[in-house]
Amino acid sequence: MTTTTATDVLPSAVTHTTSGRVYNFSAGPACLPEEVLKQVQADVWDYRKTGVGILEHSHRAPTFDRMLEETFAECRAAGEIPADFEIVFMPGGATQQFGLIPMAWLKPGAVADYPDTGVWAAKSIQEAKIWAKVIGARINVAFEGSTFKYDHVPAADEIKHSPDAAYFHYCSNNTVYGTRYPTTPVSKAPIICDASSETFARPHEWSKLAMLYAAGQKTLGPAGMVLVVVRKEFVAQSRTDLPSMFDYRTFIAGESRPNTPPTFGIYLMGEMFKWIRRQGGPSGLAIKNAEKAQILYDVMDRSGGYYTGLARKESRSHMNVSFRLPTEDLSATFAREAAAHGLDCLKGHKDAGGIRASIYSAFPKAGCQALAQFMVEFQRTRG
Amino acid sequence: MTTTTATDVLPSAVTHTTSGRVYNFSAGPACLPEEVLKQVQADVWDYRKTGVGILEHSHRAPTFDRMLEETFAECRAAGEIPADFEIVFMPGGATQQFGLIPMAWLKPGAVADYPDTGVWAAKSIQEAKIWAKVIGARINVAFEGSTFKYDHVPAADEIKHSPDAAYFHYCSNNTVYGTRYPTTPVSKAPIICDASSETFARPHEWSKLAMLYAAGQKTLGPAGMVLVVVRKEFVAQSRTDLPSMFDYRTFIAGESRPNTPPTFGIYLMGEMFKWIRRQGGPSGLAIKNAEKAQILYDVMDRSGGYYTGLARKESRSHMNVSFRLPTEDLSATFAREAAAHGLDCLKGHKDAGGIRASIYSAFPKAGCQALAQFMVEFQRTRG
Repeated sequence: MTTTTATDVLPSAVTHTTSGRVYNFSAGPACLPEEVLKQVQADVWDYRKTGVGILEHSHRAPTFDRMLEETFAECRAAGEIPADFEIVFMPGGATQQFGLIPMAWLKPGAVADYPDTGVWAAKSIQEAKIWAKVIGARINVAFEGSTFKYDHVPAADEIKHSPDAAYFHYCSNNTVYGTRYPTTPVSKAPIICDASSETFARPHEWSKLAMLYAAGQKTLGPAGMVLVVVRKEFVAQSRTDLPSMFDYRTFIAGESRPNTPPTFGIYLMGEMFKWIRRQGGPSGLAIKNAEKAQILYDVMDRSGGYYTGLARKESRSHMNVSFRLPTEDLSATFAREAAAHGLDCLKGHKDAGGIRASIYSAFPKAGCQALAQFMVEFQRTRG
Repeated sequence: MTTTTATDVLPSAVTHTTSGRVYNFSAGPACLPEEVLKQVQADVWDYRKTGVGILEHSHRAPTFDRMLEETFAECRAAGEIPADFEIVFMPGGATQQFGLIPMAWLKPGAVADYPDTGVWAAKSIQEAKIWAKVIGARINVAFEGSTFKYDHVPAADEIKHSPDAAYFHYCSNNTVYGTRYPTTPVSKAPIICDASSETFARPHEWSKLAMLYAAGQKTLGPAGMVLVVVRKEFVAQSRTDLPSMFDYRTFIAGESRPNTPPTFGIYLMGEMFKWIRRQGGPSGLAIKNAEKAQILYDVMDRSGGYYTGLARKESRSHMNVSFRLPTEDLSATFAREAAAHGLDCLKGHKDAGGIRASIYSAFPKAGCQALAQFMVEFQRTRG
């Protein structure tokens, strides 16, 4: 349905005229479900008939107690998280986790394995190396994706494991180049997954993981905070003599509020967990997300090379669809004209160029159809 | 006007019936101006006619660029911050700063001075001591407020300075016991002020400070992030080999968005900075806040000892008015009945007991008048 000839009525066809909102392809912060936004509008003024807005509720008051308890339960249900994992909400972004993880689990003289599969994986390596230097440990870059312009994630035989790694850290979906691991990579070491850009967007293989973490702004709502899901026996092995905010135990013991937490962010994640459950959870979303991505990949694959993907087929992301037009000038024109048609934020990341359509779980299928239609029409008139 | 006999119509007199909201005396997260909440409701759906809500805007897009630039300017204007200070917005709360500060400025073998004036000052000392132990440095508790049940902040001659402190750290307003420093304490060392509970609520003496920081949830809006205002020459002396998120330079160089920042929190602080300016800035707020606090202190002082303050008069806070009734049972009854009259969150902190009325800048004067009226009536009927 998406590769048929486009009509003459693109502007009114692709814009959300009734809501006054556009299709927002931002890589994060990213679009949220409109039903969640309407709930937020109500709750900012008066949360659950308390006469106090959600931004203003004490994190020690009974209303917040209840909300927090529900959010933990909704998170566990939405993510299908087994009982041997702790759930933690923390301030800061994934980059803070890039520092905290080696601080917690890397000991002097030890080594940790990090396959480099993109901009954020590389950043996690850079941060880990800083701490490794402070304490006299080592980071093994287990796969050098930059050699391949990050066009794929490693197959099992492309990963160079250390014999005795403290842990194995990988980024499951790479937003900039639009790649993802089809399944969890294998390692003898405890596996830590940065799932920032596809949290609960497909089932996570908990049995293979020691820890999963995710910045909120892509698939869970709030920017500036993270969800951490960590195996109890793994957190028990972490370093114990750091200031409290750099120790996962503090957050576990304090139910994610050892001090004043990002209360609004926790609330917003809670609303997103409920929304995820209404979509059928990770399994339900995996189907919907695959369909949405396929709409765009189909246009690319049938464009006769006009739209070329940055990712190899076997590594294609369902969250970020990255491609190029024949020239960077054409890519820029494409992004500009798409924005004028209510298709916003399609410009690729500065490190990759081209076009990137971020279509996380909350991004509507109608937006993918509108973009597909625009792609076909653009090629027809400019190609 | 506040010590006259209360009427029989307390319920309707004290509740906000038109708005459906109550007087929220929470110590933080705390009440926000209703005009700001209405702006938030609109902006969550569509920020500045972009067709994208404020939660969903990319931190790298032009709309955010403009918002961030304005927020820096509004902050500098609202706080009357001199040009030789950097302004930084960071994720995390004050407790994270309690760890980051010694990590940045305490060297092996060095000492830092910390007067202990309350629960949060004590917590900052505890965190600093953890890091001091890691690197082999020392924390000097320059005043032992617990000896006096934290009923006052130290006079100049009560502070025991180290001859060569790396810095001097103090908490300018102590929320639990309701004390504040009337003026900035004196030290030869660079002075760091935790102003979390009175940011821009009175003029800060910038010429005496090396750094001021503040968690957002009391006087600036968002929970889970902090404002840091730091002298350029002071930040230049900080440690350089830590992971990037634990180095203030990273945030300065990256304009508070080296990675995805707490975008909504920055936006909300920006709305609060504008609101603070509309109130006449710190000087204007200082007058209003003093008036509000005096309404409650007047009732206490005229109660013949029925309401006894936790703070000595010379140390009385204008942000948190803490007092006890003759028994803890009566305090509990007071808090419960006040809540039924639309005066919410008056129960004292668990460490202090009694009653605490947090009346930060955004708390309305009418709410103080309503509480004063309730206090008089409660004493008349139960005293």
